[in-house]
Amino acid sequence: MGPGPSNVPPRVLRAMSRPLVGHLDPEFVEVMNEIQELLRRVFQTGNSFTIPLSGTGTAGMEASVANFVEEGESVLIGVNGVFGQRIAEMVRRHGGICTVVSAPFGEPLSRKAMLEAAQKCQPSIIAVVHAETSTGVLQPLEPIREICDRFDSLLLVDAVTSLGGHPVKVDSWGIDICYSGTQKCLSCPPGLSPITLSPKAEAKLKTRTSPCRSWYLDLNLIRSYWGEDRVYHHTAPISMNYALCEALNIIVEEGLEERFNRHRQNHKALVAGIEGMGLQMQVDPDYRLWSLNTVRIPAGVDDGKVRSQLLSQFNLEIGGGLGDLKGKVWRVGLMGENSQAQNVLYFLFALENCLRRQGFHCSQGAGVEAATECYNAPGSLAASREFTA
Amino acid sequence: MGPGPSNVPPRVLRAMSRPLVGHLDPEFVEVMNEIQELLRRVFQTGNSFTIPLSGTGTAGMEASVANFVEEGESVLIGVNGVFGQRIAEMVRRHGGICTVVSAPFGEPLSRKAMLEAAQKCQPSIIAVVHAETSTGVLQPLEPIREICDRFDSLLLVDAVTSLGGHPVKVDSWGIDICYSGTQKCLSCPPGLSPITLSPKAEAKLKTRTSPCRSWYLDLNLIRSYWGEDRVYHHTAPISMNYALCEALNIIVEEGLEERFNRHRQNHKALVAGIEGMGLQMQVDPDYRLWSLNTVRIPAGVDDGKVRSQLLSQFNLEIGGGLGDLKGKVWRVGLMGENSQAQNVLYFLFALENCLRRQGFHCSQGAGVEAATECYNAPGSLAASREFTA
Repeated sequence: MGPGPSNVPPRVLRAMSRPLVGHLDPEFVEVMNEIQELLRRVFQTGNSFTIPLSGTGTAGMEASVANFVEEGESVLIGVNGVFGQRIAEMVRRHGGICTVVSAPFGEPLSRKAMLEAAQKCQPSIIAVVHAETSTGVLQPLEPIREICDRFDSLLLVDAVTSLGGHPVKVDSWGIDICYSGTQKCLSCPPGLSPITLSPKAEAKLKTRTSPCRSWYLDLNLIRSYWGEDRVYHHTAPISMNYALCEALNIIVEEGLEERFNRHRQNHKALVAGIEGMGLQMQVDPDYRLWSLNTVRIPAGVDDGKVRSQLLSQFNLEIGGGLGDLKGKVWRVGLMGENSQAQNVLYFLFALENCLRRQGFHCSQGAGVEAATECYNAPGSLAASREFTA
Repeated sequence: MGPGPSNVPPRVLRAMSRPLVGHLDPEFVEVMNEIQELLRRVFQTGNSFTIPLSGTGTAGMEASVANFVEEGESVLIGVNGVFGQRIAEMVRRHGGICTVVSAPFGEPLSRKAMLEAAQKCQPSIIAVVHAETSTGVLQPLEPIREICDRFDSLLLVDAVTSLGGHPVKVDSWGIDICYSGTQKCLSCPPGLSPITLSPKAEAKLKTRTSPCRSWYLDLNLIRSYWGEDRVYHHTAPISMNYALCEALNIIVEEGLEERFNRHRQNHKALVAGIEGMGLQMQVDPDYRLWSLNTVRIPAGVDDGKVRSQLLSQFNLEIGGGLGDLKGKVWRVGLMGENSQAQNVLYFLFALENCLRRQGFHCSQGAGVEAATECYNAPGSLAASREFTA
């Protein structure tokens, strides 16, 4: 229940351990086609360029920057967490002219500040993080898209912690470049980075004036392997692709809407439990991620001690704060396979136990009780299954 | 039996499908330590900086170039195959000043030409491919090291197709930067790129004047995760690392010398069989790779037809030629797990069958017979096990 990797269903582990074939074998080409088709469904897009890159989510971020930011290009980046900072750092390294609009860690970006900055810097790309894994904030994308439209900017979105847990509507939200990672809400081991490009982004790719600095992540070259030509570029991580294909099949079998509802429901129960224990969430209710929940560490409680007790005594991993939130919050993941009622209740029980040992007061079982009530409320998913804790 | 991925032992597939833990979990940190220790043994080095990068072999190549080639840096590259060409292309993209010494595909580099070029370009780095997967040539490294010493150049070596099948003596050969891939002679699925840096290379890394263009492959940052600090950089591909750890354990259990002997022996038997059938090897005997064997396609034989018959009727993959050798050779891999007498004999049998159908004449079973004789020759590994085909 950390910020990822999330647990992986046995079906995915089994698929991953199938014997290997070559990266140009007709059997593998079929797997590639199936992955592309399934990724399009999960990204909710018709984009032809929709593939998994051979690296983790950060490789997706780097590919997005390295391929679209040329020397001297104006890029506007919304930074309200560690991953926004990382995008800005990559843009600088690739010679882009960076304009950063910051918001405090734990808050969404200000539409007004983004618009004003765009007016000044006339960005060819606006980049934001949809789901900030470092803070638990869900960034609404439609206001950002509106700004892009005014300045004819490409919209670049980091969906590492949202894809497969929150809706990521690439086409209807007008996202031009969107990447994710496999180890969060897709519940697949880390190692691949799904990415999709709008036709407009693809067109821009073809008109670069200089070759992409990165050969490994050069999307023009990679397109020749994943496209109809099947030209060898690098040896695809066969086993990881087997795993991703199975993980995506599981998602489609569950149904996207059902999956999102499950993530929302378990998040709500977790929040009810946390607040029932007298603790506080870091993020305003309107902007909370369902997949990554930031809980404020109460005064007087030792961050490291709680996390190591959870790990050693309850076999339960949660994350510490990153960047500005280091030592201030815990990051509790409810991603993909891990977004389950029993996980929520077990975590609340375990956390209460650890907190008590540090002298924190709350009425016995208050967290579990509040979460259970939430599950039993009319209209909840769990209620429809006659849930009892 | 293509140019990789090679087959993966069931032990490795099982290890890969273990449940995941986090990338900073103490259990995973132990796996990381074990991998580093095992990689040092396989690279025959004491280098502290010895790790698997989170990408395929090409990512290792890119990390080697992106981290060590700064704008305007003079780099001498020996190019006698597709992978040498690829290094040169990466050097250009990273702003290095490229001097290329070419040799025909299928031949080793000329020491004299390399030396003359070095005198002219005074390179800070000399890069060569130890085992050219595209041609089957093994490049002797000691003459190249001598040239490096004269000009105080770093020696950068691509060992993708040699590591784990041929000796790669990083320390005694004085290699400064050496990378490989997991899917060749290590018999692990593709997805990681082992890399090792000499203290001299590590020192150079610290004195870069500009940040590495690639953030994902920035070895200074990655060192903080694999070093004692354990600072989060990106989510390591957990399952792939499980697999690599097991694959390396299998290698150490077999013993490096025994493994190299096995590769040599099976290569020799394959050559005997190929020549017994009246076919020819592409590469001069002194420079032949044991792991990747290039066989000249005889006149009048259809390359594609033979390969697709081998695949569809014999479930056997071999590779076609790349670059200048396209349509001229077959590439037959005997890598790691795949370097087995039964594979050699089965391949010879199957190839003869396919060739006959195209009107190629050779005496029945000549290939298998010649290979069997080779296995039964005194002193051969197989003879010591009383081998009978």
